[in-house]
Amino acid sequence: MPEAKNISSSVAASPNTRRPLRIALFGFGTVGSSVARILVDSKPEGLELTHIYNRNVARKKADWIPASVTWTEDAEALLTSPEIDVIVELVGGLDPAGVWVERALAAGKSVVSANKKLIALKGVELENLAVSTGGHLKFGAAVAGGIPVIPGLEQGLSGDRIRSILGILNGTCNFILSKMQTGGEYATVLAEAQAKGYAEADPTEDVGGFDARSKLAILMRLAMRVEVDPEGIARQPITAVSAVDFSYARDLGCTIRQVARAEQKDGAVAASVGPVLVAAQSPLAWSRGTENMVILNGQYGGNVVFSGHGAGGHPTAVAVVSDLLALAYDSRRVRVPSKPAAVDAEFESAHYIRFTVKDRPGIVAEITGALAKEKINIRAIVQKEGFAESALPFVVTVEPCKASALDRALAAIRSQDYLIEPPLNLQILE
Amino acid sequence: MPEAKNISSSVAASPNTRRPLRIALFGFGTVGSSVARILVDSKPEGLELTHIYNRNVARKKADWIPASVTWTEDAEALLTSPEIDVIVELVGGLDPAGVWVERALAAGKSVVSANKKLIALKGVELENLAVSTGGHLKFGAAVAGGIPVIPGLEQGLSGDRIRSILGILNGTCNFILSKMQTGGEYATVLAEAQAKGYAEADPTEDVGGFDARSKLAILMRLAMRVEVDPEGIARQPITAVSAVDFSYARDLGCTIRQVARAEQKDGAVAASVGPVLVAAQSPLAWSRGTENMVILNGQYGGNVVFSGHGAGGHPTAVAVVSDLLALAYDSRRVRVPSKPAAVDAEFESAHYIRFTVKDRPGIVAEITGALAKEKINIRAIVQKEGFAESALPFVVTVEPCKASALDRALAAIRSQDYLIEPPLNLQILE
Repeated sequence: MPEAKNISSSVAASPNTRRPLRIALFGFGTVGSSVARILVDSKPEGLELTHIYNRNVARKKADWIPASVTWTEDAEALLTSPEIDVIVELVGGLDPAGVWVERALAAGKSVVSANKKLIALKGVELENLAVSTGGHLKFGAAVAGGIPVIPGLEQGLSGDRIRSILGILNGTCNFILSKMQTGGEYATVLAEAQAKGYAEADPTEDVGGFDARSKLAILMRLAMRVEVDPEGIARQPITAVSAVDFSYARDLGCTIRQVARAEQKDGAVAASVGPVLVAAQSPLAWSRGTENMVILNGQYGGNVVFSGHGAGGHPTAVAVVSDLLALAYDSRRVRVPSKPAAVDAEFESAHYIRFTVKDRPGIVAEITGALAKEKINIRAIVQKEGFAESALPFVVTVEPCKASALDRALAAIRSQDYLIEPPLNLQILE
Repeated sequence: MPEAKNISSSVAASPNTRRPLRIALFGFGTVGSSVARILVDSKPEGLELTHIYNRNVARKKADWIPASVTWTEDAEALLTSPEIDVIVELVGGLDPAGVWVERALAAGKSVVSANKKLIALKGVELENLAVSTGGHLKFGAAVAGGIPVIPGLEQGLSGDRIRSILGILNGTCNFILSKMQTGGEYATVLAEAQAKGYAEADPTEDVGGFDARSKLAILMRLAMRVEVDPEGIARQPITAVSAVDFSYARDLGCTIRQVARAEQKDGAVAASVGPVLVAAQSPLAWSRGTENMVILNGQYGGNVVFSGHGAGGHPTAVAVVSDLLALAYDSRRVRVPSKPAAVDAEFESAHYIRFTVKDRPGIVAEITGALAKEKINIRAIVQKEGFAESALPFVVTVEPCKASALDRALAAIRSQDYLIEPPLNLQILE
């Protein structure tokens, strides 16, 4: 422990003035093997891979890993081993990975983690633990993988006050939606994403918005300095979007993306994750396939856009190795204070609402009446030809209004017998 | 000196555990007053503005600056004053600003500078000086102002090997060219840029490519780890581009931007700055007005794109204040070793060549003959209607070839009597 402490408080200007950081890699999957690949091939100064933990070493062991590296199935032993300075946690999830991170930090080690769920839920607590023991916690790979949004925020935008975040933070959803944009129903495109390894067998974590929600909570803390409960962030699955919505969106000059959105205004904090209409000419529509994008709006600096490969073994591994190099160079995080805050989804936004109805006279009058009651102005009513009267989709777009007012209007309509499925309500970003 | 040394080697985890860094601002122009504005309004923890140097205090003195701040016209006295921890150098140029930076570092102080010319020419030397005295040199504002490219590179991409850089690094040129794209000749648009304060009375530094060249040299060192002589980077002024080129570019599905470009391949380093044809659908064409953009291509992480406001008081001030916060949090730079390298402009690229000729039979045969002699394949010959035969512009595009081969072919043509101005030769980025 005094050993580890000595490392973290060293004042060396370059890592070559002391022995390399000894690294234990936890998890040898896609990202873990990419991290090992970069460390072995690039040999970054100041870093030495010494241990690899995996549940099943016999199955994972790779012949290109130098013989000097110890493979083990005993995670516990590594957490307090005096031979190790840094744990790279790529296992994911809260248990056991979260427990391991905590124990490593408690032992005065530093931790580099790509675990968005853990950092979103327990980041502050773990950082405080690190400060108390002299370790360091870095998690540049937890959000947007190979795109340096976290270092960009901490090191380059700490002087600004970020007022809003717009993010395409989940590559799986972006692949699915940008593919649906060129034709194809959700189920077909999901199957393709699964075949390509872009989507899990159970895609809920991604398509349900859980993954993006964790990442958004992390960005909100670093950018807006608010600590919110990630589970309190409103989320809408992309599964509700179908080909007909892309067709209507195109007529409106838009396309659809899963957008993680947060805004701080007059002390209130709003955040949401879900499918959103974005202008076809806007930066958010540029990102195709599994790309990620983050747009930060600062009071002083205006908009800053980051984009690139948010996931995948190699891009994520770049973020991990960069965090390791920062540790080797004693580059501490710029950890500006944050505060707990409540979060709602009360954006003031234009909306796209698709109703699918069994047609009969008077439906439009009833819907527009319910909207009028909440003082919501209608922008357009669009109905494409070629659908059966028994399941007729048509779209109402409304001028910017509070989300809660629209929710009330839709709740009043929801029980009507003419609706054959619940209305699909999407924000329009302008 | 022991005082300053104590600060720079402190191991505090948060700036609030010690007294704030005392800051002397050198230069109270657009950026300087924005830095002061953020420090006064936002009061970032750990930072205290104590001195402002300006050549003419009576003219600059602002009533919103707290009375606790000392105004002075005596720069020299501040450089060694024990009351000051950090010098913020916003004066620009090599002399006296460069001398001041050197003297401040020699006195063990830290320096935050936005001086691209100084950093491009003397960055390595000044960093080594800082390491030897225990000071720190930060220059996040020197390239792309409010866009965190430098921190993104140092902190988030150090784990990658960057193979190429494409940058829109000069807001003045981007304003002029993106405006010419929508119609208008160079002289008219330049006058508008000057009226808006986007261009200097003498615009040579910007339109000639000198400014972007310094910035590119800085990025090349941090990204590719090569130290090149900025004055050795090939440069072509944007003044040679006229409305007719935008018209031809449009027919080719392109537009024109000033692009700073560098590539590392098989040990050779190529770099250039100048007007370039970029696909209308490519990210480089997205940037409008004074925006900047940087696209880095990494061996492991693929493309990462940064964009935003590269200049202007507030965005640049965000970068300066962020650097100050990094100093306050003991966040040292990740300074991976770089090596001196030779640089040429030997890109393998497609080209657009506009010939303006006094028409007579046989011209095309002579030009294509000269290209054939260098084994350069022609892609297209385009000639728009409506020009006088006495000054007829037409365009030849060629398949990717070595820059030197094309230069030889054009040198052979250059002396021909039918040319009424030298051919305009632009790279086409694909």
